Amino acid sequence: MDVYERSLRLHAQLRGKYEVRSLVEVKDREALSVAYTPGVAQPCREIAKDPAAAYTYTRKWNTVAVVSDGSAVLGLGNIGGLAGLPVMEGKAILFREFAGIDAVPVVLSGQDEDDIVRAVEMIAPTYGGINLEDICAPKCFSVERRLKEKLDIPVFHDDQHGTAIVVAAALMNALRLAGKSLAQAKVVICGAGSAGIAICKLLLACGAQDVTLADRLGLVCEGEAWMTSAQREIAAVTNRKKLRGSLADAVKGADVFIGVSAPQQLTKEMVRSMAEKSVVFAMANPEPEIYPQDALEAGAFVVGTGRSDFPNQINNVLAFPGVFRGALDVRAKDISEGMKVAAARALAELVGEDLSRECVIPSAFDPRVAPAVAKAVAEQAKREGLARI
Amino acid sequence: MDVYERSLRLHAQLRGKYEVRSLVEVKDREALSVAYTPGVAQPCREIAKDPAAAYTYTRKWNTVAVVSDGSAVLGLGNIGGLAGLPVMEGKAILFREFAGIDAVPVVLSGQDEDDIVRAVEMIAPTYGGINLEDICAPKCFSVERRLKEKLDIPVFHDDQHGTAIVVAAALMNALRLAGKSLAQAKVVICGAGSAGIAICKLLLACGAQDVTLADRLGLVCEGEAWMTSAQREIAAVTNRKKLRGSLADAVKGADVFIGVSAPQQLTKEMVRSMAEKSVVFAMANPEPEIYPQDALEAGAFVVGTGRSDFPNQINNVLAFPGVFRGALDVRAKDISEGMKVAAARALAELVGEDLSRECVIPSAFDPRVAPAVAKAVAEQAKREGLARI
Repeated sequence: MDVYERSLRLHAQLRGKYEVRSLVEVKDREALSVAYTPGVAQPCREIAKDPAAAYTYTRKWNTVAVVSDGSAVLGLGNIGGLAGLPVMEGKAILFREFAGIDAVPVVLSGQDEDDIVRAVEMIAPTYGGINLEDICAPKCFSVERRLKEKLDIPVFHDDQHGTAIVVAAALMNALRLAGKSLAQAKVVICGAGSAGIAICKLLLACGAQDVTLADRLGLVCEGEAWMTSAQREIAAVTNRKKLRGSLADAVKGADVFIGVSAPQQLTKEMVRSMAEKSVVFAMANPEPEIYPQDALEAGAFVVGTGRSDFPNQINNVLAFPGVFRGALDVRAKDISEGMKVAAARALAELVGEDLSRECVIPSAFDPRVAPAVAKAVAEQAKREGLARI
Repeated sequence: MDVYERSLRLHAQLRGKYEVRSLVEVKDREALSVAYTPGVAQPCREIAKDPAAAYTYTRKWNTVAVVSDGSAVLGLGNIGGLAGLPVMEGKAILFREFAGIDAVPVVLSGQDEDDIVRAVEMIAPTYGGINLEDICAPKCFSVERRLKEKLDIPVFHDDQHGTAIVVAAALMNALRLAGKSLAQAKVVICGAGSAGIAICKLLLACGAQDVTLADRLGLVCEGEAWMTSAQREIAAVTNRKKLRGSLADAVKGADVFIGVSAPQQLTKEMVRSMAEKSVVFAMANPEPEIYPQDALEAGAFVVGTGRSDFPNQINNVLAFPGVFRGALDVRAKDISEGMKVAAARALAELVGEDLSRECVIPSAFDPRVAPAVAKAVAEQAKREGLARI
């Protein structure tokens, strides 16, 4: 049985991967009158007086909604919210397993940007944070931006920022090994969709100064007519040499290749054209932009992928549980760029003495990960005045 | 410590009455690849092919959203969604404790009817049913009607129908004891809001033919100018003698008084004016329309209230867990009037040989209640072609 069959069997057996449990036994009238009417009126009155009391008397403090319209699910594309529900349930249980968070899936029947924003705004009081998931570009940018403006709880599109945090952490360590600085490294990102642009923004926030994005239509460059609005925005702060041409042109002499695109985009020849001690993170799933063996043969110094069967897995389960844990712990109003940078640095530092070409990032199952990320995120939220406690 | 203090203490201690648990341990790469990527793609593909597969591979089959805008919470009035969250969490755990249902609270930031309908429509794919809660009249009628039209899962406003089912059950038994038939009984309902109108509709569906509603402004009667649209609608099928006047006028010679209004509406003198072997259900909370002792002294034959400290408690926890259990068990598309009647009859029959003036309804903690109601509801759904399995 392959992994797909095993998964289907597990899902049919469990009929859903989460359950909602009661923390109160309601076996008699006394229990009913305290947990429900008439006693429950008292916590209601306290919250009506002071909305912050909801964090004391309800589960809001520990609750995250995993919201998706199913417009860009894994490698499956636009399958809609309902068909994406197994992924959202999976995400919800990872929140529980890795960070003790009560997360619930919320899959949507509509895919219109305004409808998504309005629906999430309407249900937001229930939760301590909103994790947006598998929403297609460019809608994911505007949905997130608008919700961040409207809501006083963290909104985080994991497909963008989760991946970006883990890439940034792995890259910090890879460059340390190579004896290079991020500020001086020449970075090429292949794939200028939501993940690529989010990675680019976070690397810039971490101090990168020379980043170029490549898309199927060419290199993202100020003045190009084919660019989306998100690409135009990022073009203003990347590719300052205004290089036009192909991916092959961009990677010549580059220190870092980051792929979030499609299989077989990077050839051995292209890797050979990169600078000494190059870093290649080829994260297309399930087939990477270049297989590790090929990249290493062509001279790459550190190679990572999104897969668990090769070294250096860039897995966003390293980021989102700790990021939300930290944000919830201090009732953060938002998750800022600074909080993401702090998460990446904490993740990078965890590798410690194990640091090697085959270990630039901790294991997804290292129990220190979520607490360390949470601590860094919470402290940064406090520094930025985004924490409420 | 009174019940309010005890409740506040419990809420502060638990910080929320429910938790979301994972049914899968994710301790290694194999578990991650089966519960999440890449394996999870397979159940997604199955649901994309056939939406009904969501009932096999996700928790949808057992999940109910408890949705409220907090516009009419308990005796607290319009305190808003967030302040109503302790009630919705309470309701959610009652679903779990009494019927094994995974229920989650969803409290809303807005109270506009269109916004509520759109938001619930958007999030509906996640759930097997929607329990509307503590939404004020007349909005509750139109919100429920519109959602029932739009959605292919059950939508049930418990404040209306839960209470109605339990009242109908208690009344069937009380009239049996009194040797009267519902078809011939003269019924007066005090309070022509959402609960009163829902009770009226269900009693008509159960065979009642002479029902009159009284509101603060007078008796609901065809042609009255002060009536709301919901009252106008019900006026066409009630009070066929077109009686105008006060509650006192209406109860003269009545067999049944049902109060869902305010304290002290029914005097001993008014009870004395009722027919022989009269039934008085005085359900205003916490202080009833008349206290049981007074009603009995004035000659009432069977008396019930909403309170747990008097006999014959009309408690809607007797209805909603079993109603949703039954609807979920057969993947019902809707909860029809017939299904509510079936629930009421099943509830009434459970009393069996215990039937007496002080026991016309089962105890809320009788473990036979939810299964019996569920069975009756599921069977009726099948009879009406509303069941999908």
